[in-house]
Amino acid sequence: MQKLKNDLFLRACKRLKTERTPIWIMRQAGRYLPQYRKVREKADFLTMCKTPELAAEVTIQPVDIIGVDAAIIFSDILVVPEAMGMKLLMNEGTGPIFLNPLRNESDLKYLKEIESEKDLKYVLDAIALTKKELDGKVPLIGFGGSPWTLMTYMVEGGGNKNFSEIKKFIYNKPDTAHKLLDKIAKAVSNYLSSQIEAGVDAVQIFDTWGGILSSSDYAEFSLPYIEKVISALKRKEEPVIVFAKGINSNFTKLADAGADVISLDWTVNIGEVRKKIGSKAALQGNLDPTVLYAGLEKIKTEALKVMESYGSGEGHIFNLGHGILPDVPPENARYLVEVVKEESKKYHE
Amino acid sequence: MQKLKNDLFLRACKRLKTERTPIWIMRQAGRYLPQYRKVREKADFLTMCKTPELAAEVTIQPVDIIGVDAAIIFSDILVVPEAMGMKLLMNEGTGPIFLNPLRNESDLKYLKEIESEKDLKYVLDAIALTKKELDGKVPLIGFGGSPWTLMTYMVEGGGNKNFSEIKKFIYNKPDTAHKLLDKIAKAVSNYLSSQIEAGVDAVQIFDTWGGILSSSDYAEFSLPYIEKVISALKRKEEPVIVFAKGINSNFTKLADAGADVISLDWTVNIGEVRKKIGSKAALQGNLDPTVLYAGLEKIKTEALKVMESYGSGEGHIFNLGHGILPDVPPENARYLVEVVKEESKKYHE
Repeated sequence: MQKLKNDLFLRACKRLKTERTPIWIMRQAGRYLPQYRKVREKADFLTMCKTPELAAEVTIQPVDIIGVDAAIIFSDILVVPEAMGMKLLMNEGTGPIFLNPLRNESDLKYLKEIESEKDLKYVLDAIALTKKELDGKVPLIGFGGSPWTLMTYMVEGGGNKNFSEIKKFIYNKPDTAHKLLDKIAKAVSNYLSSQIEAGVDAVQIFDTWGGILSSSDYAEFSLPYIEKVISALKRKEEPVIVFAKGINSNFTKLADAGADVISLDWTVNIGEVRKKIGSKAALQGNLDPTVLYAGLEKIKTEALKVMESYGSGEGHIFNLGHGILPDVPPENARYLVEVVKEESKKYHE
Repeated sequence: MQKLKNDLFLRACKRLKTERTPIWIMRQAGRYLPQYRKVREKADFLTMCKTPELAAEVTIQPVDIIGVDAAIIFSDILVVPEAMGMKLLMNEGTGPIFLNPLRNESDLKYLKEIESEKDLKYVLDAIALTKKELDGKVPLIGFGGSPWTLMTYMVEGGGNKNFSEIKKFIYNKPDTAHKLLDKIAKAVSNYLSSQIEAGVDAVQIFDTWGGILSSSDYAEFSLPYIEKVISALKRKEEPVIVFAKGINSNFTKLADAGADVISLDWTVNIGEVRKKIGSKAALQGNLDPTVLYAGLEKIKTEALKVMESYGSGEGHIFNLGHGILPDVPPENARYLVEVVKEESKKYHE
């Protein structure tokens, strides 16, 4: 295995000393980059995920173009339910759709236990190829969805702003929900372990829909399954990041569940979360992604606010509070990276 | 003016002694009621808002059918921008649309200062008629949007899940944004004052989109304008409720801005907010609206959790954490009201 030339991100995940704050950007391999759109012209989204050469190409793009301190493998959390047997359609207009959403206990029998080495080989191949092409330049992050978030997609089937199907499901069929969450947790754990085996240096669990739950439902339907995934993970010292979108408490519980890093959305104050969580976990985030629509001066002001809020010392990985938006000018992202690289030094003296 | 037969809601708003916790339900005059849908067959949504007899009829329905302790006038927050000169389309499928969204300083000149007595007379007539027909049975709540939330609709024009237009607007044209917020604050304050003059017993300000802002942007673009609206309000002792959807801090600041009651969404813990806010404001909420999809036992369990979280003593108005959903069975709403009426007594002994 190649030694990393830039391991700032990994050191920050472990709350070790760094000369400056590392930065990467969620969805950094994405539509805002003209170089990405050029690849995307050749193939649809899922084909890109399933073609290791294309996935590796777009994964590496932002490392060179934007200057981030980590790459994240180009893929999608929904490849796991697809591997479990669900029919997935990816439409750019409507969002992802499962043609056969799960609604009843009897629907669960269509789901199979996955063997990632076989069923998701294309992701592992993309990881191996990316690691080779990165040549130790920066670490590579793997990822998967939280069981709760994947179940939400699998039960809803398509977009639904009230999340009525998933809520009916957990309230009226809680036993079935727990069975399904267990199955998904096993699959995700197997998948992330295989990603680590294939070479990723860290993994991120996306709990994108955790925030639609009340605090007590979160404690019942999301948190324990994140804990299951993490504790079943086969890893050496690869850190686990949990992106807790829309969650405004439970941060300490996420750290107790085994998250080494908690990734925050832009609505919480990162400094206040740091005070609560103490030395239990590193924090990632949390600039409002829409700030990248602003002029350079405003971008700098807002980036400085995030760094100042976190304050001095280790354990901060700069990121946005959600994925970068497709119509952001790439030069704004590049400027943000420069600002963080330069202005964060004083917090690490 | 008729003396109220049931003033539990108003006493709770003022944190005065009540025998039990009062309850009303956001969007209680709505599509989940077959009696509402029958009226709705006769007229479209905006026509219903603009026809005092129809508005009064559906406003009163849930008082009799569901048994709530307060009525809220049937209307929409977007009648204010419409009165200011914007062209409003209400499509049930796509959500509300403004045909001429505001994007530049020069667009502001099309907005006029409103005189509610003239421009929104139909709402005031509906209030007067409803008060007469309610005959003192329960208090009547009036409402309006927060300046920030109304501006979001006025700038976006239509639905946009990333809120990119409003964010570009505030980041790149902050001076224009502040000018516009000022204009809207004046209109809302005039409108709510007229509603009080026409007979409502309390007003609620809906800050539906406050939660898309970071804490510091909230302090710049939403909070000060809520404060302006409240401080310019002509009222005697009518309480002001602020519904702070998606906000997970800033509660104390809302109380400082003059909110007598803060209405919470379901993602925060009402007991924890009570601890923070002390005696500064009463709290309204905050059952997850999707719990009403569940069976009766689960509805009871979850309602009890909210009451137990708030704890003993005055200042709690039971409500959902957001509007009731259109496909909820009315008997579930009625059952919730019964449970709260019966089970809350012990918290007021």
